[in-house]
Amino acid sequence: MVKLHGDKNAKPEAADARKPSFDNLARLVDADMARVNQHILDHMQSPVALIPQLAGHLIAAGGKRLRPMMVCAAAQLCGYTGSRHVGLAACVEFIHTATLLHDDVVDESDLRRGQESANALWGNQASVLVGDFLFSRAFQLMTADGQLKVLKILSDASAVIAEGEVLQLMTANAPDTSEEDYLRVIRSKTAALFAAASQIGAVVADRPHKEEEALHSYGMNLGVAFQLVDDVLDYSADQAALGKTIGDDFREGKVTLPVVLAWRRGTEEEREFWRRTVERSEQEGGDLERAMEIMARHTTLTDTLERARHYGAIARDSLGIFPDGEVKSAMLEAVDFVIDRAY
Amino acid sequence: MVKLHGDKNAKPEAADARKPSFDNLARLVDADMARVNQHILDHMQSPVALIPQLAGHLIAAGGKRLRPMMVCAAAQLCGYTGSRHVGLAACVEFIHTATLLHDDVVDESDLRRGQESANALWGNQASVLVGDFLFSRAFQLMTADGQLKVLKILSDASAVIAEGEVLQLMTANAPDTSEEDYLRVIRSKTAALFAAASQIGAVVADRPHKEEEALHSYGMNLGVAFQLVDDVLDYSADQAALGKTIGDDFREGKVTLPVVLAWRRGTEEEREFWRRTVERSEQEGGDLERAMEIMARHTTLTDTLERARHYGAIARDSLGIFPDGEVKSAMLEAVDFVIDRAY
Repeated sequence: MVKLHGDKNAKPEAADARKPSFDNLARLVDADMARVNQHILDHMQSPVALIPQLAGHLIAAGGKRLRPMMVCAAAQLCGYTGSRHVGLAACVEFIHTATLLHDDVVDESDLRRGQESANALWGNQASVLVGDFLFSRAFQLMTADGQLKVLKILSDASAVIAEGEVLQLMTANAPDTSEEDYLRVIRSKTAALFAAASQIGAVVADRPHKEEEALHSYGMNLGVAFQLVDDVLDYSADQAALGKTIGDDFREGKVTLPVVLAWRRGTEEEREFWRRTVERSEQEGGDLERAMEIMARHTTLTDTLERARHYGAIARDSLGIFPDGEVKSAMLEAVDFVIDRAY
Repeated sequence: MVKLHGDKNAKPEAADARKPSFDNLARLVDADMARVNQHILDHMQSPVALIPQLAGHLIAAGGKRLRPMMVCAAAQLCGYTGSRHVGLAACVEFIHTATLLHDDVVDESDLRRGQESANALWGNQASVLVGDFLFSRAFQLMTADGQLKVLKILSDASAVIAEGEVLQLMTANAPDTSEEDYLRVIRSKTAALFAAASQIGAVVADRPHKEEEALHSYGMNLGVAFQLVDDVLDYSADQAALGKTIGDDFREGKVTLPVVLAWRRGTEEEREFWRRTVERSEQEGGDLERAMEIMARHTTLTDTLERARHYGAIARDSLGIFPDGEVKSAMLEAVDFVIDRAY
């Protein structure tokens, strides 16, 4: 695969010695995240035993918790020394988890990236209802925090996420989806919560509007880049070589940017292939390989990564108004990592 | 059927001439509800066309809107002359509608009391996601209202509703459910939102805590009575005579108070009947009639109505601290109506 992520961001002293990683950011928010994790555990309790059981399956069982980490990192970047970010980071994770639970019902998926999904284990009913509980609990936590501005940011984000999911449902299995429509979906369903999470860091620190805006932009563009790279990884031969499952999106008929671009650039015969496999979901042996050949011919995976780099660059630049420092460096490196994990 | 609702509440001058009705309350809140309905229509809009379509199926298509009416009536009772109750009544209806949408997914029901349900028409996915949207929209409206106390009341109610639904899921098809557990379920999943709706009337009017408490109690107990009467109506021979469908709860294996009492009072042979029909859902022709015979033998329908009257009496008494007047009379009559509709 072509190395797209080359000299521009490479450290001059050790271009290949050290790949960008999430470790610096993780280390900086480590103490905060210990408190966030405790807060999450404390607040997913309920006298109704199934709730902590099921929520624990998703929450406790080692998600990456990127979104709450964003809240903590942004708060640190803004010099915040209070503790409101702890409860609000938990909120953000609850909203994310509720979304995952409802997604699995929507996708009717028995597996969430290789692991048995909550709805396969406990049924759709429990997934819907525990999702509703976590969502309500998130609003209780926000209300306990007590700032209307935070409530507005997160209730707006929640409505946008739901709109994005409905939009995705309506464009599902449509390989002729436009790039704009696809971006609208991932901005809404993935990036909006990253944006809200980062923005909240500035809000709790009571920073000026332009810093809020900058962190909102950081989260939004990082979120878009993150999703686009995920889309690429699902078709990556390198991932397959590492023993990871690939082709989940294809098998589920999910139209992601690599498919959108392949359709746009494709021959009539290739479009018929996408119609059969994605639109009508009539798949047979060898179809995934064929899909990857077509994508390679039109370089849609590398070009999707180019798009991801574009959004990553915007995310990096949005932090330009903050003074240099350890947290800022780690947040910039996180952008590089999000994109670099495709290599 | 025995007339349980006799002399105590009858008007001396025309005991049988006029049954209690909801008409007086409906007339008093008529102008308010026109504004609420407009608010609902305005705020269920979205650029994603499926959202107003599906929400409109449930919202616009003539629900009774009891909960928003409670907000308006309670606000009037408290002498409120502002307009915050309009947006908050819409919130309450959105939360209720989101719950209905998710309920239909949970119940896997193709019909909602005789009408094709949203999930049968648009699929489970759309029901889950549009429910999430309406729920988020409710929190946006509350945030726009801007009072944290209201946010607390409604986010608490939402969490309690979700807990109640999960609890119901865990006690589903269990005819040996205790009366206490059953009451916990209906308090949570039905009555909590009635309670919150009434309470909000006092909150917007900035009335003392004891009036809030009184209206919370009114809504809670009215809600419990309402649900218990619904449970009875589902097995009512009078309803069947009127051409209404009965036995939905039984066919779905829903354990309601008439079944709970029948199990408690039943013979071993009868319990085996409930195990087969409700617990294992193995039903055959004549089972509904048999269920109704057993209930009649143990008078569980009339005794469930007695329980409903008990909660109705508490609801009536909770209004005792308010001075007499047109709105109070109409709210008292609404309690009588809720119970009387069983006759």
